Amino acid sequence: MSKELTIWSYDWVPDGPRGFVRDFRLRWAAEEAGLSYAVSTVAFDGRETNHLDRQPFGQVPFLTDGAIKIFESGACLLHLARQSPTLMPRDPLGEAETLQWVIAALNSIEMVSVPWWFLKMSGATDNALTGWLDQRLSQLESVLGERQWLAANAFTVADLLMADVLRLPDIRAHGNLPATSAYVDRITARPAFRKAHADQIAHFAAADARRAATSPA
Amino acid sequence: MSKELTIWSYDWVPDGPRGFVRDFRLRWAAEEAGLSYAVSTVAFDGRETNHLDRQPFGQVPFLTDGAIKIFESGACLLHLARQSPTLMPRDPLGEAETLQWVIAALNSIEMVSVPWWFLKMSGATDNALTGWLDQRLSQLESVLGERQWLAANAFTVADLLMADVLRLPDIRAHGNLPATSAYVDRITARPAFRKAHADQIAHFAAADARRAATSPA
Repeated sequence: MSKELTIWSYDWVPDGPRGFVRDFRLRWAAEEAGLSYAVSTVAFDGRETNHLDRQPFGQVPFLTDGAIKIFESGACLLHLARQSPTLMPRDPLGEAETLQWVIAALNSIEMVSVPWWFLKMSGATDNALTGWLDQRLSQLESVLGERQWLAANAFTVADLLMADVLRLPDIRAHGNLPATSAYVDRITARPAFRKAHADQIAHFAAADARRAATSPA
Repeated sequence: MSKELTIWSYDWVPDGPRGFVRDFRLRWAAEEAGLSYAVSTVAFDGRETNHLDRQPFGQVPFLTDGAIKIFESGACLLHLARQSPTLMPRDPLGEAETLQWVIAALNSIEMVSVPWWFLKMSGATDNALTGWLDQRLSQLESVLGERQWLAANAFTVADLLMADVLRLPDIRAHGNLPATSAYVDRITARPAFRKAHADQIAHFAAADARRAATSPA
């Protein structure tokens, strides 16, 4: 199979975000779908300005798929999902349900969890977003207590994205969330998750070796 | 045309959010696309629990389209967009670009602007998200300074959503954003915006009249 798909990431990142840089979501989706892909990089140093022509917020990932160039991990996932019934069922009801939960992961959960995490990392002692995050996670816990998968009675890209959002450090430890915790454990135990995760870790470790080899003695 | 589409909103809201409740996004999209629709409601009072079977976060809007039920305004917009080339072009490149900017509105701009606004409303004197919002809006300003529309050289649902995100009070006044401000003015001057906005205002005003008629003298 020709490698028409290219997933773009950084050439290197510090230890902290390794395993969490969002090209991971695309690697994972491609592994689930059995899509062949290459990985290319832009420089982490100077990311504020060095690839704004490809990603106007200076972030990764972005994806090239033949002539198509697309950024935003959520958009890339929906683009890939339309190429694979493993990621999104083809019937209109299943497709609508998958789309709904992909957007819920991005705009109902992550819209609270990422700013909450940002405030936490900024050293906020009284995190003003904690109550809101509590409420959203509790509502999601009710959903996950009643079903194995978010959409269409099957694994979909909605589970991939929601589990990735929820596996951020400290989110699952945020309250009494047994169904959510079991869900994240179950989804992240999938072989495609493990393969993609190991590949991202190895990608950045190889960059460490290159940096060491080229740095002054 | 049969009214297969039903947009669900609240039966009433206080004055503050009128014109901003997110069923507006769906009304606007349906007006742009010339899609016939009805509006139905769930009770605003008791929204924390009274319609969790239809929207697990207790919010509106949600949409019924024949047998399809879908929540999350962003998901509803993408669902409607696939029914109308006015909202999303049919060529793969234009579709990918529209999808990308819809997700950018939800996950790169609104993921910062809504929590920023939440902290502001909470009375934060030193809003910890201001720097992040500044950065994102400045990056978007660079994009909007170079083009009339976000995607596909035409009005799309991406402009509808981005303009709706940016018209939230205080966002545009957040810095030196002339291109962004002109963009929001231009997009919100569209007849479909004005029709949908007037309709939502009238919907809630009618609820005031009903409340007044049934309240104890």
